[in-house]
Amino acid sequence: MNNKINIAVIGLGQIGNYLLNELNTKKKDIELKTGKKINIVAISAKNKSKKRKFKINKSIFFKNPLEIIKKKEVNILFEVIGKSDGISKKVVENALNNKIHVITPNKALISKHGDYLSKLAEKNKVNLEFEASVAGGIPILRTIKEGLATNKINKVYGILNGTCNYILTEMEKTKENFSIVLKKAQLLGYAEPANPSLDLNGHDAFAKIRILSSLAFNRKISKHKSFMEGIENIEYKDIDIASQLNFRIKLLGITEMINGKLFERVHPCLVQKDSYIGNVNGVMNAVIVHGKPVGESVLQGEGAGPGATSSALMSDLLSILRGNIKYSFGIPNSKRKKVVSYNEKNSSNSLYFRFEVKDKPGVLSEITKLFANNKISIERVIQIPDHKKKSASIVIITHKSLEYRSQNLIKSLKKNRNVIKKPVLIRLF
Amino acid sequence: MNNKINIAVIGLGQIGNYLLNELNTKKKDIELKTGKKINIVAISAKNKSKKRKFKINKSIFFKNPLEIIKKKEVNILFEVIGKSDGISKKVVENALNNKIHVITPNKALISKHGDYLSKLAEKNKVNLEFEASVAGGIPILRTIKEGLATNKINKVYGILNGTCNYILTEMEKTKENFSIVLKKAQLLGYAEPANPSLDLNGHDAFAKIRILSSLAFNRKISKHKSFMEGIENIEYKDIDIASQLNFRIKLLGITEMINGKLFERVHPCLVQKDSYIGNVNGVMNAVIVHGKPVGESVLQGEGAGPGATSSALMSDLLSILRGNIKYSFGIPNSKRKKVVSYNEKNSSNSLYFRFEVKDKPGVLSEITKLFANNKISIERVIQIPDHKKKSASIVIITHKSLEYRSQNLIKSLKKNRNVIKKPVLIRLF
Repeated sequence: MNNKINIAVIGLGQIGNYLLNELNTKKKDIELKTGKKINIVAISAKNKSKKRKFKINKSIFFKNPLEIIKKKEVNILFEVIGKSDGISKKVVENALNNKIHVITPNKALISKHGDYLSKLAEKNKVNLEFEASVAGGIPILRTIKEGLATNKINKVYGILNGTCNYILTEMEKTKENFSIVLKKAQLLGYAEPANPSLDLNGHDAFAKIRILSSLAFNRKISKHKSFMEGIENIEYKDIDIASQLNFRIKLLGITEMINGKLFERVHPCLVQKDSYIGNVNGVMNAVIVHGKPVGESVLQGEGAGPGATSSALMSDLLSILRGNIKYSFGIPNSKRKKVVSYNEKNSSNSLYFRFEVKDKPGVLSEITKLFANNKISIERVIQIPDHKKKSASIVIITHKSLEYRSQNLIKSLKKNRNVIKKPVLIRLF
Repeated sequence: MNNKINIAVIGLGQIGNYLLNELNTKKKDIELKTGKKINIVAISAKNKSKKRKFKINKSIFFKNPLEIIKKKEVNILFEVIGKSDGISKKVVENALNNKIHVITPNKALISKHGDYLSKLAEKNKVNLEFEASVAGGIPILRTIKEGLATNKINKVYGILNGTCNYILTEMEKTKENFSIVLKKAQLLGYAEPANPSLDLNGHDAFAKIRILSSLAFNRKISKHKSFMEGIENIEYKDIDIASQLNFRIKLLGITEMINGKLFERVHPCLVQKDSYIGNVNGVMNAVIVHGKPVGESVLQGEGAGPGATSSALMSDLLSILRGNIKYSFGIPNSKRKKVVSYNEKNSSNSLYFRFEVKDKPGVLSEITKLFANNKISIERVIQIPDHKKKSASIVIITHKSLEYRSQNLIKSLKKNRNVIKKPVLIRLF
């Protein structure tokens, strides 16, 4: 690599704009640490004249990012648009095929096309780096690939979506319901104003879990759809009851190998209030890695926002400037094993059920009989009457029971005429 | 670098022996991840026939490690003896001068001779890596050098000694005194049986803080002696009183830049029970980094033991096998700035004082007057009488006060005839 490095930044939203400023202000630091002089030769975005926090150099602005690759000599390209397909994919493909290193925080793109794109990078002998795609401020991908390089990892889990964690924390604190707190999160910039659903329904965390799995277990990226549940249906009532039972509700992403089979899932969990993960609050992210011989490693930091994301993007830049070509997923693509998926129906968990029932004699016995019929053993029952509505909430915590049994139970509960609303099910961690 | 890499391991104690086994069992994994084949060509220790957990290959055993460098072609050498000078230093010097990469977990050596040795490595164009020297299972050095590479770090602190943290946790749990719990720690292998003092008096944590400072702030290694206090004088009584006030006692290492001046210290602290750091228990280590733009990053993991240490040593090995020559302290030695030390006497802290006094009228007023004379403002006073001994414990928590004032206060308290024992002072974090 030459000592002068030409850089292009594609996408000048909140993150791209912040990154541009970091690149401009840290040129000397980068030269000190790597011996390379960086030069930003091209930028691109939809809108040239949009108001941005940091001013952009309009003389290097391109409306069409693909033009940059044709017309400019670029060594490293940042893709900060963020789509899973379309122009994001085209730009990255084009760059790699033109032997340009690519850095991106785009989890949607990597979790969908990571296998293909990393092969393309390997073929063209350039780097494809995506540290910022998972838990921005936490250098978790680098830690798995380098810091814990020869450990045998068997489980990775954590809080991977700051938006959800903020909402759950705030609901507990303010006793307000989901929709009110969501609005607050949108006002504060923690949730997207137009379409926050990818964060809230678990999709975003699942993309991150897929990337983590492939790195931790040296596997291709899984396509299997396992449990993907978000927090849209969490009511304050459940947070409150959980709290009385010394639990907190957290949206966890979990991936583990069970007898050579990959089990990935994202869903709300009841976690002990005094556990580590139960105390990661607000917009913070946390990742826990179980490996041998290292034991348990915990990393916590800001998960999103332009500062944390730029920190990760810059670490990718320095890695490229300092080093040789590295495998995007830690090992050659040809050596990454195919995924064999664990059948999630065979998983077992303790469960938290809540149903709203008509307040009349015999209902509890009828419901607990359904549990017995499905061979689900009850650990704890709480009945909370609501005299005004002539209804009651029944909360049941079960011993560990098999997923398919609890699914069957839910079906029969839904049919039961004494159960007023769709029952709530939250797994215990 | 050739594809075949010859390795020597010097020192076959608990860690060296475990490392040797890791190297032997992970050859294939290393080849997969780096494309290099490793071959252990020489080992050395004081005692050839000592009983070890994993068998050693006696045909490659050398009594004198310096002979290995003369007689064998070695590419990478692990120094796992652990002395700050003597044979450890000689082996590392010799290896670097012979263009052999060196990996070591030796914090005593690096915190004392790191500047000199990293210059030697730079001159000879080889790597000197020491990830395992600070918080074994936590890849904190790599995180500062790479994961948070362009962040402006202003503070790093944490629990850096697993032995001390185990003892403090165990004292709280069992209500036993220091000496009893120390014996238990020695039996369990958490504290050295012969001479545990380097762990207990803060020396070990201070060596780690010096290494962290030099990396976080791009400075030479400081020689300045600031507060270095251990846990030998912590009594169960203080843990108990602290607990009633909703605090826990932790041995913290802290380093920060204050107006361009470096302030490093290690001492017991009262931390809030419900804070993150207050809940890092047992032999766990934790490091917290404050940087811009990343915000607060937290890393937690096992701090010591052969598993965690080997994990870090192996990550250094893979870093060398994968990459170019890297600067040991992240930047060229010539660019590392000299240390200007902060005068710790100007620091200010809230303080916890405990004195044992004669139980007679006027003592409290006499003592509080000494506080006033020294311009130290009191936040809270607790007096606990001991009727049998006709004495009382007085606990005083102060508002923030300047260090030199509290030192003067201690002097006058020591002279006071009503104060029976040397007063206890613990800083609040």
